[in-house]
Amino acid sequence: MAQATQAEETPAAIREPEPAVAASAAPGTIGNSEFDRDTAVTLRAPGVYGAELSEGWTIIRAVNGGYLLAMLGRALGEALPHPDPFTITAHYLTPSRPGPAEIRTGTVRTGRTMSTGQASLFQIADDGTEVERIRVLASYGDLSSLPEDIRTSAEPPSMPPYEDCLSTKDAPEGATPIPGSTAITQRLDLRLDPATAGWAVGAPSGRGEMRAWFGLADGRDADPLSLLLAVDGLPPTAFDLGLTGWVPTVELTAHIRCRPAPGPLRVAITTRNLAGGYLEEDAEIWDSEDRLVAQSRQLARALLG
Amino acid sequence: MAQATQAEETPAAIREPEPAVAASAAPGTIGNSEFDRDTAVTLRAPGVYGAELSEGWTIIRAVNGGYLLAMLGRALGEALPHPDPFTITAHYLTPSRPGPAEIRTGTVRTGRTMSTGQASLFQIADDGTEVERIRVLASYGDLSSLPEDIRTSAEPPSMPPYEDCLSTKDAPEGATPIPGSTAITQRLDLRLDPATAGWAVGAPSGRGEMRAWFGLADGRDADPLSLLLAVDGLPPTAFDLGLTGWVPTVELTAHIRCRPAPGPLRVAITTRNLAGGYLEEDAEIWDSEDRLVAQSRQLARALLG
Repeated sequence: MAQATQAEETPAAIREPEPAVAASAAPGTIGNSEFDRDTAVTLRAPGVYGAELSEGWTIIRAVNGGYLLAMLGRALGEALPHPDPFTITAHYLTPSRPGPAEIRTGTVRTGRTMSTGQASLFQIADDGTEVERIRVLASYGDLSSLPEDIRTSAEPPSMPPYEDCLSTKDAPEGATPIPGSTAITQRLDLRLDPATAGWAVGAPSGRGEMRAWFGLADGRDADPLSLLLAVDGLPPTAFDLGLTGWVPTVELTAHIRCRPAPGPLRVAITTRNLAGGYLEEDAEIWDSEDRLVAQSRQLARALLG
Repeated sequence: MAQATQAEETPAAIREPEPAVAASAAPGTIGNSEFDRDTAVTLRAPGVYGAELSEGWTIIRAVNGGYLLAMLGRALGEALPHPDPFTITAHYLTPSRPGPAEIRTGTVRTGRTMSTGQASLFQIADDGTEVERIRVLASYGDLSSLPEDIRTSAEPPSMPPYEDCLSTKDAPEGATPIPGSTAITQRLDLRLDPATAGWAVGAPSGRGEMRAWFGLADGRDADPLSLLLAVDGLPPTAFDLGLTGWVPTVELTAHIRCRPAPGPLRVAITTRNLAGGYLEEDAEIWDSEDRLVAQSRQLARALLG
């Protein structure tokens, strides 16, 4: 319900006439894109949704955490009376696998301007037992209802224009391939700031930074749900610190602050504190109108590669 | 259980001989202090704890959010097999009142190095109905088990020494009193960096910063639970932005990264994005050995005063 309303309101849906080409080649629009199809949830019972985790959003060994967050965020948007995730926290409990899943939501509190809910994603493990993959706690509101006042001191990241950044689809000469699946890179239009891409050729900067232009490969514009994908959609900052091992997310919290304008996003991620085998990743997302549309932080484990 | 172990391990408890003065005037130690007594929880049933919210930790109109987080964090530390909150998120649902409360915890997942749990704090409202005040989702581990490696680029905040900062107990001449309760200021030894204290005399810097030395008034040293108090223990950064209204927390997430060394903490809080009636508060806590011991972010509403 909330999603339908959202799609109706988006300027992108108005701008894009129905293309007269085959559906598979059609540019994505909010509500009709790879991302929307692959995060679809189907009501099974009040607050309970069926879902299918797609192979298309895997990276290295795992289903991408941002994709999973977007799917849970979508289920909560359906279940709660408010459409948009203002603040959403996910604890990643066990590794998700492509295939069927069930999401069970619960309403914690319903208020006039905000409602709070929780959700869990379950899958059936190889031994037939049901396993919880992720638990989410979130407060939802309506971004369209917020006043226009902005008194921010934050400034967009300094990075080269889209054209001068590096597509993750075209590995540079001499690049070390990421071991395992890179399926997600085909779904994204990710252009890395060359200053934070040295790790791909064995020359990480050591600063713990990652910056990129971020879009969906089929051209679908961003909305609050795809921002949940974007906060975890770049290569880990650990690569820029010279680590090569797996960096599983323990917990990720995202604040969605504004409905993004059409056009590519800029995502800037920073790690300042790698200590005791853990690190934080702080992400900011800026839209084409220079609005800070999302802020997130995750705690991840730095496993030695 | 976890708390007893923690108290036994702390160097502070070893350094401080049992003082030969009346208990009320005795310096606080970890496990025996105002903070410990006021965050005490009593097992009522498996995973269910009774608690008493103290009048002593109220500010303006409300029971302090950090104090509540510490109490819930303590209950989860008792309920889960691991002692320390690595990452803990609280959603503040309805305003808590001093008086009795019940905390119900649930174990989400138990692993070898980490366990995940959730907890809710309930109170009985004036009309006799039970109301949920806060819901928490957290992953716990054992800080003592982490390797000593530190590869951090974060640096401690630049601020004057303790002696040159301003005690919040001694209001400066011409200071605008904070309306309502300031009980919590008597429990804290809070010394504000003069550069971020201008709001008290009607001259906020406009930068959205707040920095202070932070200790407990009875001298109790810091531990992971008191860090949960400290992340929400300073005046709101909104004051430094020139706002005077109430800034209720929607959600707060804290990462505890290291067991703090004895001695006063430095807390630095920044707001970069005040927009649409909401703002984030990013806090860092540094210990006396220049370790970044905690990082937190909260989303708060900026109500016009």
